[in-house]
Amino acid sequence: MTPGLGLRGAAAGRQGAAAGAAGRCGTIGHMALDPKIADRLKRTPDGLVPAIVQQHDTGEVLMLAWMDDEALHRTLTTGRATYWSRSRGEYWVKGDTSGHVQWVRHVALDCDGDTVLLKVDQVGAACHTGDRTCFDADVLDVTGAP
Amino acid sequence: MTPGLGLRGAAAGRQGAAAGAAGRCGTIGHMALDPKIADRLKRTPDGLVPAIVQQHDTGEVLMLAWMDDEALHRTLTTGRATYWSRSRGEYWVKGDTSGHVQWVRHVALDCDGDTVLLKVDQVGAACHTGDRTCFDADVLDVTGAP
Repeated sequence: MTPGLGLRGAAAGRQGAAAGAAGRCGTIGHMALDPKIADRLKRTPDGLVPAIVQQHDTGEVLMLAWMDDEALHRTLTTGRATYWSRSRGEYWVKGDTSGHVQWVRHVALDCDGDTVLLKVDQVGAACHTGDRTCFDADVLDVTGAP
Repeated sequence: MTPGLGLRGAAAGRQGAAAGAAGRCGTIGHMALDPKIADRLKRTPDGLVPAIVQQHDTGEVLMLAWMDDEALHRTLTTGRATYWSRSRGEYWVKGDTSGHVQWVRHVALDCDGDTVLLKVDQVGAACHTGDRTCFDADVLDVTGAP
């Protein structure tokens, strides 16, 4: 089995789980990530890649989330940032609950296909704490040079 | 065993491996990450957290790398971005080989302690391909709305 086929199988499993969740069925249409993209992805053993989310105009790094093939496919084809929630075990369309939608402006893979960069237009706060970004509250001291 | 103690144990193991590598012994001084920081980290089963690396002034997202407690400790106390190389199984002081040093200006944890954001001053190209960032070469089409 090729890595691409294996991942699509894993994504299909999650797809089934998501289809069983109330209110999500309507978002499921074309299920397969373009194989030319899927073949370039390098995933964790769980079939995921980290997605860095950045505000497209200010450059603020808003948060980091995780995607499987299906989440990336939905993100690219709907323009709504969509992740795989590791804690809840389901797809997560950012803003569906909070209203804090991320409209997708730009998506890129990194040089070795194991990270996604999303540039978005963030509505309201990106962080569930109410902060604009998830990196606002816990700054660490850099004590060394330069 | 608490997660914090477990991780410090894992980091100590990597420390030993790194100490055996030529040219790295001189960089090993104080080994322990501040326990108040270590206690806030949530790590992968491998004891790592992803580190998003951003150019401090332009906001460019340069790359994503991985840190264990020791790599974060060295980053904070030396001002040189230092990672754990998953492929090589050793600490990696960015720029030691390439000259493309990252001088650390700002470090923050995210809201749930499972991601680090580094703002750096990048010397030269961040990407091993010679591109300024690791996200320059593989842009994906967003076909959906908005």
